[in-house]
Amino acid sequence: MFNQLGVIGCGLMGGSFALALKRAGLVRRVIGYSKSPSTTELAKRLGVIDDAAESALLAVSGSDIVLLAVPVAATEATFKAIRHLVEPGVLFMDVGSTKRDVVDTARRVLKERIGAFVPAHPIAGKESAGVQHADASLYSGRQVILTPLPQTDPVLVQKATDVWSKIGAQVLKMSAENHDAAFAAVSHLPHLLAFAYFSAIVNQPAGRDFLSLAGPGFRDFTRIAASDPSVWRDILLANREEVLKQTARFRHSLDAIEHVIKAGNAQALEDLIRGAADGRSNWQIGGGRGPSAK
Amino acid sequence: MFNQLGVIGCGLMGGSFALALKRAGLVRRVIGYSKSPSTTELAKRLGVIDDAAESALLAVSGSDIVLLAVPVAATEATFKAIRHLVEPGVLFMDVGSTKRDVVDTARRVLKERIGAFVPAHPIAGKESAGVQHADASLYSGRQVILTPLPQTDPVLVQKATDVWSKIGAQVLKMSAENHDAAFAAVSHLPHLLAFAYFSAIVNQPAGRDFLSLAGPGFRDFTRIAASDPSVWRDILLANREEVLKQTARFRHSLDAIEHVIKAGNAQALEDLIRGAADGRSNWQIGGGRGPSAK
Repeated sequence: MFNQLGVIGCGLMGGSFALALKRAGLVRRVIGYSKSPSTTELAKRLGVIDDAAESALLAVSGSDIVLLAVPVAATEATFKAIRHLVEPGVLFMDVGSTKRDVVDTARRVLKERIGAFVPAHPIAGKESAGVQHADASLYSGRQVILTPLPQTDPVLVQKATDVWSKIGAQVLKMSAENHDAAFAAVSHLPHLLAFAYFSAIVNQPAGRDFLSLAGPGFRDFTRIAASDPSVWRDILLANREEVLKQTARFRHSLDAIEHVIKAGNAQALEDLIRGAADGRSNWQIGGGRGPSAK
Repeated sequence: MFNQLGVIGCGLMGGSFALALKRAGLVRRVIGYSKSPSTTELAKRLGVIDDAAESALLAVSGSDIVLLAVPVAATEATFKAIRHLVEPGVLFMDVGSTKRDVVDTARRVLKERIGAFVPAHPIAGKESAGVQHADASLYSGRQVILTPLPQTDPVLVQKATDVWSKIGAQVLKMSAENHDAAFAAVSHLPHLLAFAYFSAIVNQPAGRDFLSLAGPGFRDFTRIAASDPSVWRDILLANREEVLKQTARFRHSLDAIEHVIKAGNAQALEDLIRGAADGRSNWQIGGGRGPSAK
């Protein structure tokens, strides 16, 4: 299907994409670039890439599909480094967890060349980063959100849809705005709350003692509090407008539950909890609008 | 070790305790009482109890160990029903998730007989309630907190420690006040936040659509939001003073993280997240003060 994949950023996400395309027989050759030469060297030794490029631009040269899998903060510099080779007919995608900021940057840097860029957010990851954890199955059974612009080449959107589908992902399309609003609600806010909650525990005098009594509920509730600090710093700042809308909604909900507790209103408290408990019982991953959604 | 165990409330907790004592050869006979005769009937058919008692008082009669495993709201009525048979030398325990309210009720109802009562909180449970889910291994490897009073008979505290230890639990002792403060922090607050968060999602216009995009982080973070509404209504109200202290601490922490996001202060945001992430990475269940604690 593709002649050459250029991977810019040979980490978990970029490396897994390369392995998945290789395994599915979707690409003849993979060329990779990473800021650190030792990463590219490791990626080559692991068979994730076939050759190392000496720059991001050289990873694009001769490629008909390019994946930008760099930290969000490096997106602008990467677009600038490659823009002269962003040409019609070559599929460019990213893997960022926020989309409005990436789209804005792409618009500003790529200008009239933006039609080749199909913004993508694969809902996949692992607790352990790095190319040594790259996995050909990382995207299998997971959702990938594409947020094409009016200027995006529809042929490339179709190619993007096909390549993700062929490596086992379910592709959804929406606007960058809707994407960021939805993920502020179901991903960014829970992370923010888990960080705030864990901080509140460890910053109180008896906090360390309390931790020795915590059980399985606590373990699951706080798992995401162990996420990568620099990644989440960037996500929460990049999507701050939507995130702050969600914290406002959450505060409203917290006020309501505190109010009925203070008032000792058992029935209202039970009703409030039941609304959440019923909703959660009927939800399941990847489907999730209730039992009928299957 | 014991001649007869009286179980008042033959549900998951009471039934599992009976099965565990039987399996460990710690009791000759188990007599059970439940408000609903069909429950006691089922418990007998499943071999959880040997005989059904027609009242709570009759379940106490002839027993040298008694477990009250009734909903928190039924504690007072149960103590009243059995108080005439609360005698020195017989070990009485409960399994409630809050302890100050139980101790206060016991003091008020049992009066000078309170020495026989050893308040207990086994940190164990299952998502599915009912005697049909009773499990002899439910308490194995789990913590049990005892909160004895100055008046509690030390011989009975030792017997309580022994019986929980012999069915595989790790026994800790602390005051009812410290217990309630600790569990407000590591259990009650996370439940309250999970209820509030899930409510905030489902009560917004696009909430149902957002849910279809939620992933594994959301799944784990919200698992406890599916907990039993009437149980959690009772816990949050019974421990409301400590719970509200914890929501105040949490709000302080939420304010701080929102403040740095609004200010766009990347370094302060990263530091705040890193404090939580490092703390959570070093925590593990049942040990948990960092890597050195094992």
